[in-house]
Amino acid sequence: MESQITETYFLSAARCTPEDELPLPALVQKLIDIATLHANRIDIGYDRLIKNNCAWVLSRVAIEMERWPGINESYSVTTWIVSLNRFYSDRAFRICDSDGNVIGHALTTWVAIDIDARRPANLLSLFPEELPVKGDIPPVKPFVRHSQIEIADEVTPYTFCYCDIDCNRHVNTTRYVELLLNRFDLGFFDENRISRFEIAFQNEAHFGDLVDVKIARSDNNEFRLEIADEKRTLTRAAITVTPRS
Amino acid sequence: MESQITETYFLSAARCTPEDELPLPALVQKLIDIATLHANRIDIGYDRLIKNNCAWVLSRVAIEMERWPGINESYSVTTWIVSLNRFYSDRAFRICDSDGNVIGHALTTWVAIDIDARRPANLLSLFPEELPVKGDIPPVKPFVRHSQIEIADEVTPYTFCYCDIDCNRHVNTTRYVELLLNRFDLGFFDENRISRFEIAFQNEAHFGDLVDVKIARSDNNEFRLEIADEKRTLTRAAITVTPRS
Repeated sequence: MESQITETYFLSAARCTPEDELPLPALVQKLIDIATLHANRIDIGYDRLIKNNCAWVLSRVAIEMERWPGINESYSVTTWIVSLNRFYSDRAFRICDSDGNVIGHALTTWVAIDIDARRPANLLSLFPEELPVKGDIPPVKPFVRHSQIEIADEVTPYTFCYCDIDCNRHVNTTRYVELLLNRFDLGFFDENRISRFEIAFQNEAHFGDLVDVKIARSDNNEFRLEIADEKRTLTRAAITVTPRS
Repeated sequence: MESQITETYFLSAARCTPEDELPLPALVQKLIDIATLHANRIDIGYDRLIKNNCAWVLSRVAIEMERWPGINESYSVTTWIVSLNRFYSDRAFRICDSDGNVIGHALTTWVAIDIDARRPANLLSLFPEELPVKGDIPPVKPFVRHSQIEIADEVTPYTFCYCDIDCNRHVNTTRYVELLLNRFDLGFFDENRISRFEIAFQNEAHFGDLVDVKIARSDNNEFRLEIADEKRTLTRAAITVTPRS
């Protein structure tokens, strides 16, 4: 069984940001796509889990990019399992340009949940066999456990719409990421590129849910973000940017 | 030179609507992608036009679907040029399921504009050679020239955000489509599937533009939609649905 797989993509003009780069939400979607592909190949994917009424749920994502793939450029994503225990599995990604230079890394944490009970399942019971765990930890700063934003610089209300909802009938992961990026203006991304993005999913949102999107600048180049409804925090995130020069 | 090309796609769970089907905005993007690919192959694409400071602009789209590709299903899109005159070019699309059954058609109209003057260019001057025009007109009801919506059933304000903007620094085509679909609720699409969608792009929108999204029900299964700012209509569209049974 393959302990890692690599997929190559081409970034067409129609799929670029205004800065002619791969959009962060599109990269997050690619990471989910290739993780799904690898899980299926080593038989720990949807088909296997559903037999136990379970499904994979993405819990945390941290991405660090030195450079973003540009317009009409090919790039590759490689993924492997870092670790797997009772409670969760860490999966890593390496992003390379067309010359094979490493331009970024990502680390994700996944849990399996029982679909009806919405409670975590025991991964070691689900997969008693030996799995092709590669182990290599990507050079990404570990996840930070962010506290609640007490004083926000800005709070924007948003109601989730039809196109935000995916086939699980929850808000799609990439829509959260877009909602967060939309707190910044075009000039901000013209002047800055995202060097680190981190997001933790805490509660699921549904069609019609009204939320507040909160943003707090923690220093010149770092921002904390939060999406929360009346009762619960849905996601916490942090964005670090580097001025373009 | 190929008078038509066909591309095959796979619809993964992560890319489905809540109804486990191909989303309309994703289909529109695929039509643009394959049109771009075919134009490049027959040397009437971006690289050729930019030498004359021109670019293709999508003017109108009409899509009619008998059935939508479903979750974990392969489907194909075939495209060819229907006609080309001084002012515009019509391009057709046929959508087939994995057994080769035709499940839908689309017709699009494209113009070439001078990038600086933002005025239409003469296609016959740009392409004096003979082009592989296939000619076959797809069985799609012709475009309707919709008048302005005078009395809307609902008017919703919206301000275009960072993730709505593409590398041309205009609002991306698929974002208009999403904005229109978001006027309906989840229950509506659970009960109805889109059988025809038509959109005409009249003026370009930019980052930060505040618009009104207007909707008017013209009969039980037909809706007219409009996106307009204070001064101008940006797009007009019509959606026809068929109850799922």
